[in-house]
Order: sequence, then C-alpha cells, then structure tokens
Amino acid sequence: MDNMKFAVIGGDMRQAKLAELLAADGHNVSTFAIDKIKPVNVIYADSAQAAAKDAQCVVLPLPIAPKSQIFNAPLSENTHTVETIFKSLKPEQVICAGRISKEIYEMAAKHRLGLSDYYAREELAVSNSVATAEGAVKIAIEETSITLGKAKCLVIGFGRIGKVLSHRLKAMGADVTASARSYGDMAWIDAYGYGVENTERLYGKLSGYDIVFNTVPARVLDERLLSEIDKECLCVDLASKPGGMDFIAASKLGLHAIWALSLPGEVAPVTSGVIIRDTIYNILREMGWKV
Amino acid sequence: MDNMKFAVIGGDMRQAKLAELLAADGHNVSTFAIDKIKPVNVIYADSAQAAAKDAQCVVLPLPIAPKSQIFNAPLSENTHTVETIFKSLKPEQVICAGRISKEIYEMAAKHRLGLSDYYAREELAVSNSVATAEGAVKIAIEETSITLGKAKCLVIGFGRIGKVLSHRLKAMGADVTASARSYGDMAWIDAYGYGVENTERLYGKLSGYDIVFNTVPARVLDERLLSEIDKECLCVDLASKPGGMDFIAASKLGLHAIWALSLPGEVAPVTSGVIIRDTIYNILREMGWKV
Amino acid sequence: MDNMKFAVIGGDMRQAKLAELLAADGHNVSTFAIDKIKPVNVIYADSAQAAAKDAQCVVLPLPIAPKSQIFNAPLSENTHTVETIFKSLKPEQVICAGRISKEIYEMAAKHRLGLSDYYAREELAVSNSVATAEGAVKIAIEETSITLGKAKCLVIGFGRIGKVLSHRLKAMGADVTASARSYGDMAWIDAYGYGVENTERLYGKLSGYDIVFNTVPARVLDERLLSEIDKECLCVDLASKPGGMDFIAASKLGLHAIWALSLPGEVAPVTSGVIIRDTIYNILREMGWKV
Amino acid sequence: MDNMKFAVIGGDMRQAKLAELLAADGHNVSTFAIDKIKPVNVIYADSAQAAAKDAQCVVLPLPIAPKSQIFNAPLSENTHTVETIFKSLKPEQVICAGRISKEIYEMAAKHRLGLSDYYAREELAVSNSVATAEGAVKIAIEETSITLGKAKCLVIGFGRIGKVLSHRLKAMGADVTASARSYGDMAWIDAYGYGVENTERLYGKLSGYDIVFNTVPARVLDERLLSEIDKECLCVDLASKPGGMDFIAASKLGLHAIWALSLPGEVAPVTSGVIIRDTIYNILREMGWKV
Repeated sequence: MDNMKFAVIGGDMRQAKLAELLAADGHNVSTFAIDKIKPVNVIYADSAQAAAKDAQCVVLPLPIAPKSQIFNAPLSENTHTVETIFKSLKPEQVICAGRISKEIYEMAAKHRLGLSDYYAREELAVSNSVATAEGAVKIAIEETSITLGKAKCLVIGFGRIGKVLSHRLKAMGADVTASARSYGDMAWIDAYGYGVENTERLYGKLSGYDIVFNTVPARVLDERLLSEIDKECLCVDLASKPGGMDFIAASKLGLHAIWALSLPGEVAPVTSGVIIRDTIYNILREMGWKV
Repeated sequence: MDNMKFAVIGGDMRQAKLAELLAADGHNVSTFAIDKIKPVNVIYADSAQAAAKDAQCVVLPLPIAPKSQIFNAPLSENTHTVETIFKSLKPEQVICAGRISKEIYEMAAKHRLGLSDYYAREELAVSNSVATAEGAVKIAIEETSITLGKAKCLVIGFGRIGKVLSHRLKAMGADVTASARSYGDMAWIDAYGYGVENTERLYGKLSGYDIVFNTVPARVLDERLLSEIDKECLCVDLASKPGGMDFIAASKLGLHAIWALSLPGEVAPVTSGVIIRDTIYNILREMGWKV
Repeated sequence: MDNMKFAVIGGDMRQAKLAELLAADGHNVSTFAIDKIKPVNVIYADSAQAAAKDAQCVVLPLPIAPKSQIFNAPLSENTHTVETIFKSLKPEQVICAGRISKEIYEMAAKHRLGLSDYYAREELAVSNSVATAEGAVKIAIEETSITLGKAKCLVIGFGRIGKVLSHRLKAMGADVTASARSYGDMAWIDAYGYGVENTERLYGKLSGYDIVFNTVPARVLDERLLSEIDKECLCVDLASKPGGMDFIAASKLGLHAIWALSLPGEVAPVTSGVIIRDTIYNILREMGWKV
Repeated sequence: MDNMKFAVIGGDMRQAKLAELLAADGHNVSTFAIDKIKPVNVIYADSAQAAAKDAQCVVLPLPIAPKSQIFNAPLSENTHTVETIFKSLKPEQVICAGRISKEIYEMAAKHRLGLSDYYAREELAVSNSVATAEGAVKIAIEETSITLGKAKCLVIGFGRIGKVLSHRLKAMGADVTASARSYGDMAWIDAYGYGVENTERLYGKLSGYDIVFNTVPARVLDERLLSEIDKECLCVDLASKPGGMDFIAASKLGLHAIWALSLPGEVAPVTSGVIIRDTIYNILREMGWKV
C-alpha cells in the first residue's frame, strides 16, 4: 500500500472520523476547518493552504456546499467560502467532495481543478443504505406502539434503500410488502419472499398497513393515496428532496408522518466515515494508486 | 366463544388497550381507575365496586402494586390502596394481576380471593421478549455511532430474551456471539449460527466487542469483567432488578452503560395489551371458559 | 381479465403444467405435441394447425429447438421440425418461445412471424434463480458429508443466481463469502453480510472452503485456481455453457466437481410452469391485453 | 488440555471420523472393528482387548447394538457380540456408547462397567437436529415439483427438530406454520414469525399445505387427519419409531409419504463425528478431565 499525504478540509463528524481512519492506515493526514473536535494522530493546519500543501489527495465535505457557495464546515469556528478553499488547491491533486452541484463543478473548472464526487459512487450509496435502513427500523420501533414483529409494512420503491430496508424489516419479523415498477424488480421482491405491489398501481391497495415507508424521490403519495392509509399507520418518507409524500395533505388527514433525511450521518457517523474512506480508496485505485 | 363480563381496574396504557380489545371481541367491559384516557366502547364505572359488579373476570395492573400496598393506577386521578380494591371483589371471580408479591397474595387470601399472575405465565414472558429485543435493537442503533450491520455483539444469557435478541441482531446483520451455562444451550447457540461462549468463563473473552447485552438477572458483569470491555463498547443491561452489571464500576471505568427496564410497555404498549389479553384468555380456557 | 385462446405446442412438464394453469385461469387452451401426459381441462388437437387455429397466443417450448431445427417435444410420440410448426402459425398471433437462436428468428421472419423470447425476460430469469439456488442447496446437502450449517461457502459471481444462492446459503447457516467485479456489487455483498472477494483476484484466496459455487458463465476456475482448492471441497458449477470451471483439470486434481445445469426444470417443473405463465401474461400486458 | 488415550471400537463412518478427529487433537487413538476403512493417524489393533488396553476412554457405536446383543460394526470384516467387547473393558475406564438399552446396561453392570450414553445428551440431540433439518430440506426440494420458496409448510411439533426445521424452512422462503401443545411453545412459534397451530387440534386445519413434516414420536397423523391433507401434498415423517404417521392409511389415500430416519448419519457423517467428539469431551469434562 502506498503511504500517501491526505488533507481533510471541512465537514462534520464523518470527515473527522475519516481523518483518523486515514491516519490509522499509516497515511500522513492534515486537517483544517474541523477544529471543534480534535481527530487523533493528525496535523491541525491553520489554513486550507497549509493543510493542502503537498497533499496528493484532498477530501472535502459531503455536501461540499449545501447552499450557494458557503463551504460546509459545521465543526469550524469560522466561515469559509468554496472559492477560498479552491484557491488553496492544485490541479494535480486528487480532489474528492460530496454532492457537487453544477455551479461548484464550474467554479472548480475555473481554477483548473478536477473534482470526484464520492457521494455519486454506487458503493457509497449501497453502503449508506444500510445505515438508512437501520435508522428507519429505529423510527419504526420508537414511533409506533406495536412491535415490528408481525407489523404489516409497505416499502414503496425497490432501489437500494428499498432492498436493504425490506431485508431488515423481514428479518425483524415484519410482514413486508414492497412495490416496484418493472416486472424484473417485482420478480426480485417475490424471490426474497415479500408481498409484491406495482408502484404505479398503489391506489386501492394502501389500507391495512401499520407502517408505510416511501423510498421513491418523486411525489408517489399524494392526497388521494394518503387518504386510503389507516389513521393509526405510521408514514416514513426516506426519499431525499423533494420527497415522495405530500406532508401538508398528510397533516390535514391526521396521519403520523415523518420525513427522515440524512440518517447515515445521524445514526452511524463512524461507519459513514469508514464508508467514505473505502470509497476514496476505490477512487484512488481507479487512478492507479495502490491503497 | 362465551360472551363474558370483564372489569379492568387500574394500570397503564396496556390495560387501557386491553379493555378496548376485550370490548372489540364482543365482551362487556367495565373500567375503573384508568380515567385519564378513555378506552373506546367500554363502561366507565365510578367505583371499583361498580366496575367489578357482575364481572366474571377482573383484570388488575402489571405490576399490581410496585411498592407496598399502593394500587398501581397511573392513569387514575386518584390514589387507591390494594385493600380497597380487594374489598370490591368476590371469591367466585377470576382475578388476574401481574407481578404479585407474597404480601399481596396473603392479603388476597384474607379476603378469600384467588389471584392468577398473568406476568408469571410462560407465553406472556415469551411474547414480551420480542418487544424487549426490539427495544434493545433500537438502543443499539441510536446509542452507537456505527451500524448494527457488522457490529460485534455479545449477548450474555440464552433465556427468552437472549434467544429473541440474538435472532434479531443476527437478522440485522450483526456478528453475534451468545453465552450460556449448559452444554445444551451452547449447542442451541451453535445451531442458530452464533458464536458460543460459556457465561461462567467470560473473563479474558470480553474485549473486541462493539456492544455487550446482558440478559442474566444476577451480577455477571462485575468490575473485573467490565475492565476488559473496550472503552467504545456500548453496554446494555436488560435484566430486571437487581440487574447484571455493576453500574458504579462501569461509570468509574468510563463505559457507556445503559440499564433498559420495562421495554415492552415503553416501545409497544398496544402489542403488550394484545399479549395480556391472549394470556388472560388462556387462563380462562384452562378454567373451562370458552374464549 | 380478457378470456383468451391459447395454443401450447411442444415442450416438457413445464409446458404441460402451463397449459393446465392457463385453463384454470379460465382461458381456452388447445395443445399439441405433449401427448404423453394429458394436461387437465385442455383440448388435445391432432395437428399443430388445429391447435393454433383461432389462438391469439401460441406458446412454444423452452428451448424451442435445442439443436438445429428439430422442434423440442419430448412428450410427443412423434418428431416435428420447427419449419412445420411455423407453417401452422399466423403473423397476427402472439408467439412466445424460449431461447430463440438467430437461425430460428430468421426462419420465423421468412414466415412473417414475430417471436417473443420468454426466456430472455428479466422476471423469468430472476424467478428461475430461486429454483436454481434450491437445486444447488440440495446438491450441497447431499454431496458433502458435513452440514451446510457452519460450512464455509464461496459463491463466485453476484448476478441473479449468485444473489439468491448467497441469501439461501446464509439462511441455512452457512458461512458465506461472495465475489463480484464491481465496487458497487461488492458493497451489496457486504450490505447483506457476506464476506467479500474480487472475482478477478481470487488467486491465493481459494483454500479453506468446504464448497465453492461458480455462477459466472466464463472460464473463472482454471487449473491454476482449482489447484488451490482443498481436496475435500465440493465444487458446483451453475453456469450455463461453456461453464466456468475446467472440469478436466478438476478431475486431474481429484476434486469433487459437479456441473449442475437446468435445475429449475428438474427440481421445480410446476413452479417453472407458473413462472412461464406469469411471464407470458406480462408479455401480453405490454401488448395491450388485459390478463 | 490433557493428552489422553482413546479406544474407538466398532461403528460406522461417524466413529471412523471420530477416531481421526481425536488423533488430530493430539490424543493417542487405537481402533478395532472399523477395518473396512482406514482412519488416518490411529493405531489398528487386532483385538478389542488390544485396542482398549491402557485406554482412559473407550467409545462404542451409536447404536451400540441395534438388535439383541450383536455389536454394531458395519465396517468390520467380522461379527462381534456385545459380550465379547465388554469382556475386553475395565471398570476404571470411561465407556461411552449410544442408544443404550436396559438390557445392555444390565449386561455392563454384570461386568462392573459403567456406561455413558452420548446419544442421550441434550447437546448431541440439538446439534444432530441441524443435520436432520437439512436432510428434511433436501427431501422437500427433491420430492416436490415446486420450489420451497413460497411453499406452504406445516411442521408438527416444536421440539428440537421442529425448532431448527422451522427456522431453516422459513430461511429458504417457505410459508411456515408450526404446531405445539403448550401455550409457551405457541408463543415461541409466534415470536419466530411462523403461523401457530395447536398439535391437539389439527383436525380441520390440514388442507392447503404443500408439505407436512411430522416431528412428534407418537401417532399424530391417523387416517382421519391424513384424509384432510391435499393429494399433491408431500408428507415427511421425521419422528423415530414408532413414527407419527399411519403409513398404511397414507398409502391407501394415495398420499406421497416418506419416513426419513437417521438423517444425520446419512447427510452429514463427518459433522456427526465432530458432534460425538464434542459430546464425549463434555462427558469427560464433567468427570474432571481437562479436554
């Protein structure tokens, strides 16, 4: 394995943990803008430039900039712009960041920087779906007054989160039905032993559930469908913005609805750090590094 | 099925739900001392005597009296003694209560009342262990910063809770080891695919775990054993009093230790009500009723 | 649901069962060239032409013609050519057949017939993989002298069969490792709790297994890799031709190697008939029929 | 661990494997009357007396004598009586044998020999039930024309085999119902997520199953109950003699019924050898040896 120099700049607990993990693997790690907590065995630089100097790989936050151009650094005492961070980096460095918008890519291009979005990698998305499914299981246990064992659950959508969540719910003893759009996915749902529904024909099929989980990032549960759901049913939306549930309608109907976002960072920041590390290693391997 | 008259007196959400469930099965149900919430389709009597009048079966709380002789009625506006409740009952009634102490049995005998302890029934204990296991899973997800998937878990004791908890943890993807004292139980642990330890020889085997659950209601984890557990490890004691963990030592050692009691009533009061109903039906069936 | 006219011509137990299932759904079903067994509630026509007359949908065998142009009809007293069968059909009929070669497509085109290959459908492949996995589990139980519980198993390839087989093996208590080529699939393997290997880097990793299953239809296990496998290890190749294992080398090395082909038709002909029916319904639905 | 001297006399593949395993653990092992196959690293004695001389522990077959007094030695070229074997042993030796009848115990007593029945040990019975359950799964896959996934299965009895078999069937995707007699066991069945029946009230509940497994060693399935079972249903009796199914009635009714005995020795002789070794170690440990 190559011994490399990394700079980890900005981010939350996940990046702090990442810095420690990289150091534990024998790499040389500098950090900046995560000063509120102190990762172990890393160097605390006093500027982005100092941290990034000599680094072969620079890791930026997930998301790199939630809104406009403010750099995401909740653990920093100060505020930074993406612009100032980019100014400290060099074109020959491998620069990894998460959830990079078109604007940020263009800004990087102006500085002749190439960015790799680790959040866009399949393996990170898959691994994160385990933490999301666990977060959903936790919500199901604590927000209902019944046991998950024997609970009738519907999982809408059979993408990554739908697959892992259905698996875990069934494992906990729930009576699981999942929905998908393609015949192939429906055959998978059947092969894993869940009840099968067609996501596009849910109307008329939504009563009788104890918990409904949505994983589809499109307005699947509109007022018409929500009105079919039993009043005691818990509705959990796991889809990222714009979400798949009409929360205003749900509230009007008196449903107990929860929009659960960013569960991996919340329920498993350390595991999330491990996942980011593994993904960055994969990115580096594809570029010819031995890590 | 016989149509019966029930009186449900005192108790918490579980008894309130029980009253509703009995009524939903077509029985005639009177309640007293659960007035803060209003179960549906039941009669609210204004005294224990009025509630119990004509009832063939009277259901009292779990526990019937947590301390001394104060009747357990958290949902009542008033305070009642066990004595006054017993005075309202008749020897020919089937009287069910939970966690009955020797003192309470003796007091009942003075009033010529026979009591059946539904909490002492095997089927209730087994069914409750599902809710306890789910509560433990929830704690494991929320109190660690790693995913349960891949987490190294030790479950001490392979009684009811140990069995169900090990099953659910493995189902969630955890790497489960369980301990028992008899060779027969160790063979069961092995047959279900968990790692095997001897509860009496845990010393020297406790490092390397992410989560340790104790289910044995005896001081298993003393200071000597606790000192072996990794600092990042979460310790969850699920054993009823006196518990199985030396919490003072755990605190001194800087361990993250949680004593989780009464999980069924907390995470699944409705399911708990269903379980109590089923158990009371079993008690009645054994006495010759058709329910 | 539309009431339709079907003709089922040729094939084995699966097509015979299919004919019965279609009839049980209320359709009008004629058969030809499956005369050795007599499906219930269907018409036995005395020629392909008579069977196909008026049929809206014609179902031909899987495979339609294993070699050259001989029509696949093991349950027929006579031999038929694909040519004579095609002559009995009409362009406006929906014609479904399985494993259609280029030559057969071209022959059909000459008769102005359009063919739908039900074997090429994702949902059939997924559903069939359950029967294949079960057949593999059966082989593992009967061809080893150890229990599957605790057995160290390697599943090479994480496509449809690899996914279902890994799931079932783990469910039976085996210690499962699976291999894949992409980082995304490796993350899936990890998410489901199996050990992870890279299919392209198996060399040096093959000793210590009790059973190795190959699912990759390409020469993965050549002599070099086979020579690493323990002598007591069972090797099962589930890949269709050309298979993934060098059987000559395996034999030379004294390995116990089995090439298990066509398991669905062998271990579950009735379920296979159900799967073909469901797939044909899906094909018809996509063409606008209401079935 | 103590280094001990063992004699393994008579028996089948399981005892042959046992001899090898004991030798592999560093013990000194002599064998007699398993001469048709040659276990590795053990001494082949030419008489029972020579094999047993100096041995601290002598292991005899399972069963020690299937009928009357003929010693069970299918792998020996010769026939031996239990009497001649007993004459070669000494009172101070630990003598382990399987399925010891009252007559054999009495005969041993005459020779002042104490016998330990390893087959009567709970841990051996539990471990064996895994192999029995696997054998039953194999039969279910090969003797039906449907997949086990989705098959409706009834497991009668929730003892050791019932528990493990239900677990494995559900894991394979089957729709499992189990029956028991006590409310406690029914609660367990429910906790593990299977459908629940009362073994004593199966009449009127037996239609609709694809496979019925009996594990109760008493006539549970008489003609009246068998007549309710669907004609396509597979019936598997796993109970030892006298079995739980009326096979004459089953045959008259045209049911496909199989009496599957001695599955562990058949499907997993090596694992059975391991289990016997572990059980003998437990017996020795309880006598104060360090193994």
